[in-house]
Amino acid sequence: MIKSAMQQYRATYSPKLPKALRGAVKAVSGAQTKSIGCEEDIRLLFPNTFGMPELTFETGEENAKKEAKPINAGVILSGGQAPGGHNVIAGIFDGIKKIHPDSHLYGFLMGPDGLINHQYKELTADIIDDYRNTGGFDMIGSGRTKLETKEQFDLGLEIIQKLNIDVLVIIGGDDSNTNAAILAEYYKSINAPVQVIGCPKTIDGDLKNAQIETSFGFDTATKVYSEVIGNTLRDCDSAKKYWHFIKLMGRSASHIALECALQTHPNVTVISEEVEQNNITLKEIVDYIAKIVAKRAQNGENFGTVLIPEGLIEFLPSIKKLIAELNDYLVDHEEEYRRVPEEEKHDYMTSKLSAENAEVYASLPDSVARQLALDRDSHGNVQVSLIETEKLLVYLVGKRLEEMRKAGKYNGKFSTITHFFGYEGRCSMPSNFDANYCYALGRTAACLAESGVTGYMSTVRNTTAKPEEWIAGGVPIVMMMDMERRHGSMKPVIRKALVDLEGAPYRYFSEHRKEWALKTHYRYPGPIQFFGPDELCDKPSITLSLEHPHKNSDIETF
Amino acid sequence: MIKSAMQQYRATYSPKLPKALRGAVKAVSGAQTKSIGCEEDIRLLFPNTFGMPELTFETGEENAKKEAKPINAGVILSGGQAPGGHNVIAGIFDGIKKIHPDSHLYGFLMGPDGLINHQYKELTADIIDDYRNTGGFDMIGSGRTKLETKEQFDLGLEIIQKLNIDVLVIIGGDDSNTNAAILAEYYKSINAPVQVIGCPKTIDGDLKNAQIETSFGFDTATKVYSEVIGNTLRDCDSAKKYWHFIKLMGRSASHIALECALQTHPNVTVISEEVEQNNITLKEIVDYIAKIVAKRAQNGENFGTVLIPEGLIEFLPSIKKLIAELNDYLVDHEEEYRRVPEEEKHDYMTSKLSAENAEVYASLPDSVARQLALDRDSHGNVQVSLIETEKLLVYLVGKRLEEMRKAGKYNGKFSTITHFFGYEGRCSMPSNFDANYCYALGRTAACLAESGVTGYMSTVRNTTAKPEEWIAGGVPIVMMMDMERRHGSMKPVIRKALVDLEGAPYRYFSEHRKEWALKTHYRYPGPIQFFGPDELCDKPSITLSLEHPHKNSDIETF
Repeated sequence: MIKSAMQQYRATYSPKLPKALRGAVKAVSGAQTKSIGCEEDIRLLFPNTFGMPELTFETGEENAKKEAKPINAGVILSGGQAPGGHNVIAGIFDGIKKIHPDSHLYGFLMGPDGLINHQYKELTADIIDDYRNTGGFDMIGSGRTKLETKEQFDLGLEIIQKLNIDVLVIIGGDDSNTNAAILAEYYKSINAPVQVIGCPKTIDGDLKNAQIETSFGFDTATKVYSEVIGNTLRDCDSAKKYWHFIKLMGRSASHIALECALQTHPNVTVISEEVEQNNITLKEIVDYIAKIVAKRAQNGENFGTVLIPEGLIEFLPSIKKLIAELNDYLVDHEEEYRRVPEEEKHDYMTSKLSAENAEVYASLPDSVARQLALDRDSHGNVQVSLIETEKLLVYLVGKRLEEMRKAGKYNGKFSTITHFFGYEGRCSMPSNFDANYCYALGRTAACLAESGVTGYMSTVRNTTAKPEEWIAGGVPIVMMMDMERRHGSMKPVIRKALVDLEGAPYRYFSEHRKEWALKTHYRYPGPIQFFGPDELCDKPSITLSLEHPHKNSDIETF
Repeated sequence: MIKSAMQQYRATYSPKLPKALRGAVKAVSGAQTKSIGCEEDIRLLFPNTFGMPELTFETGEENAKKEAKPINAGVILSGGQAPGGHNVIAGIFDGIKKIHPDSHLYGFLMGPDGLINHQYKELTADIIDDYRNTGGFDMIGSGRTKLETKEQFDLGLEIIQKLNIDVLVIIGGDDSNTNAAILAEYYKSINAPVQVIGCPKTIDGDLKNAQIETSFGFDTATKVYSEVIGNTLRDCDSAKKYWHFIKLMGRSASHIALECALQTHPNVTVISEEVEQNNITLKEIVDYIAKIVAKRAQNGENFGTVLIPEGLIEFLPSIKKLIAELNDYLVDHEEEYRRVPEEEKHDYMTSKLSAENAEVYASLPDSVARQLALDRDSHGNVQVSLIETEKLLVYLVGKRLEEMRKAGKYNGKFSTITHFFGYEGRCSMPSNFDANYCYALGRTAACLAESGVTGYMSTVRNTTAKPEEWIAGGVPIVMMMDMERRHGSMKPVIRKALVDLEGAPYRYFSEHRKEWALKTHYRYPGPIQFFGPDELCDKPSITLSLEHPHKNSDIETF
């Protein structure tokens, strides 16, 4: 296999490590903790891991740890790819080897399945070196199986015991970390001598809270999307003849769309959380976009760009109701529906729905109506990621503009191009920020392993300062938990962080969006740089900079 | 307007200039030239500009040019955007200002229309500085109007005379440069005192020949595509569950797809020129891809990636025949066809076609059949760029795999994701190569202006050496011409450079494609770098490196 020059250079990068992790490290305990909600329920569910203290790692005394023992660690990648995962693993490896050279690291293959099915490989120095600072999860693969049942836990314990694993590190999003906490509680309850540690991963950026400043991968993925969005905006302003509708990955939360908007200043960005909280209808979104198209046309500018979060369609009350009724109806009538001739399907379905939903259904373009009724997963649910929301909006805005034209309120051209940016960002080479952050998370996980704790998440804070000043520590996962209704029953969960309409990133966006809508004030972030000045190469996301402004940072220049 | 840190840093980059252009410059004439074909026809069409010598610019003697006069230049951007256009303009500006500080540069707005309609703006130092090393054509806009008629030429001459323009620089592709030659001939024939100079632009890479090593923009655009293709390949190898079908911009030639294949080593790359020259049918392409999918499935790898050039569909003999018959039929029957009910359209059309074409038509998925029959431009022709060739191939390969499954020859999964990469590459910030190359082309155009010649293209050669050693010069455009049948009559044209199946880039590809098909040997070029070691930042495309190997270059490491 021939490596590119970039792959070869990037392999030589040394992540910048927080000062406290460089030499001897000591763990400093904070106060006992509670859960953020439903304290009594959570305490009952986690009797062995509730109330543990937060930990911070500080510079320790050299020579204080002559009796260190080797640590055997296992690691699992869980869920969707995010840039930097390999650096977490490299950090764990270097961390446990620093503690004792006879330590071993095992990677479970293709996600949690590897633990259950006992598929693993030992990760030696050669393998680790081959993957330093690379994107992707291809070192050991990932998977979406959820670790939830006692049977899974017991199968996992077999291989853990066989390999003498002392600590299992689970790298994943909110659900995977919730399951890490349940696994930790279970192993502790049966006195199994294995610790479980979590690491915060997701490009969606929705795993953050008072304890976690950001999840890894968000920085790199949004920088890749912002590069190509910026290029598209420059094309838009050069050709001056297209409206680009760009859908962006990120199903539950709109952090990606918001960050990309702050980076590139497109004319319209839809934020799902605003749509939901303010009960904005699809019609209102369409009217809003159409008005901006018409106003720009008045200025002679028949071009522009709209950013749309992938999950928008699930946040629209009218579509949510329609999907619910479709789901209910099709449970018993799917076969009947399939037998209806293609050209009668639309009328057939309209006749079966309530008046309100029938109206919504009738307003949709054929392709989307078909996707809603036919493309269903094995549980009979609509596959939201397959719905081409960007084409739906193009269709509806086009219809609205024709009405406005007839009413004498619009006299422009509306040529459109649609895009979906997602897969090109999840496995990019990590930015310096993510490379440093992930490596520090891995090294911190090794420190947590040495501390003997379980049910903790590895955390690195103060991330808008220079990496030297970052603060490494551990947070009891249970501390971040609350009870929520999921699939019909109350479950302990880590609360998903949605875009906060009172938060600084959204506020900055809402203060500027009018100007961005009507003027052409595009901003071009360019490709991720690894070798230039720190200001270019090490800068965190604008979201993070606004949420955790550092005293030396200059927000206006981002 | 807030600029990103990258925009601010990039503005300070000083393009590396060929040694010969740094101080005083002298023009050295070569031998008289001919045209590459149809010498007599071309000589008759270009009596005033046929047979001129090639020019090379060499270091001249300082103080030799005390009597330099100011030069007034006009510049036009013609056709699709390509990274580096602004640097050509900056090069012209700096070049004519170096010749005399009282020189002026005028930019005609929105392409050739600006010349005809007398829409222009003077490009002052402030404006130029704002656009140095930026992507896009937004400084003055571009357009696709062709300069072809005497009326247009005379309208242009009015504004040229009003502004005392000495030289008009047309930045465009093969057609725009052909028209530049016709314009030069016309102005010379009427003794109008204005020179016309061309510059070779197109991301497609199909404007190159014995005189021109590469067109600008190809380097940057293919690097952007290769970055996101590389990221997608890493995602593909991490998730291990999708086949990605990626369509790439580039209608007439497959240079973009070929360069991206050399950069990233995907499992399949279709090269339109190979399809045409070897009379490969759509069925054979589908069979070839299906066989690779099946073989990889046997190895447990139900994933992979296919690159498809945008123009492929026009190179398929069966589809070409079908389109021709559809075009002929619909000229007189479009209204009738539109009135046929949606669900009967397919049968209706099948009944009107010859047996051979009806069979092809019937084999297409509905969406593509509809695009072929309905989405036509104002001349009644199919709009090839709207046809979703990537979805067509997914559909046909899926059908073929089901046949193979029934025959017991395939037992895998075929989940697919489609992409189109185009708009994100045309307006990227130019790579160092394109920034240097374009600036040198602009400076060379200024030298050609000073030399008093007309009908020349600005050329910069030896481009796989260091920029200091690049060779600047001018080539009579007529020298690159031949006669070809276009729209029913013989026209003088610059021959489009298609992928040469005997050339080194294609040969390298064909020697490796079997290995790339079955193994997973992806290569990840990463994002364009501006600030690192020369090896990363200044390296030209692999295509160029293979076509013009430099004695110091190491092909294997590209």
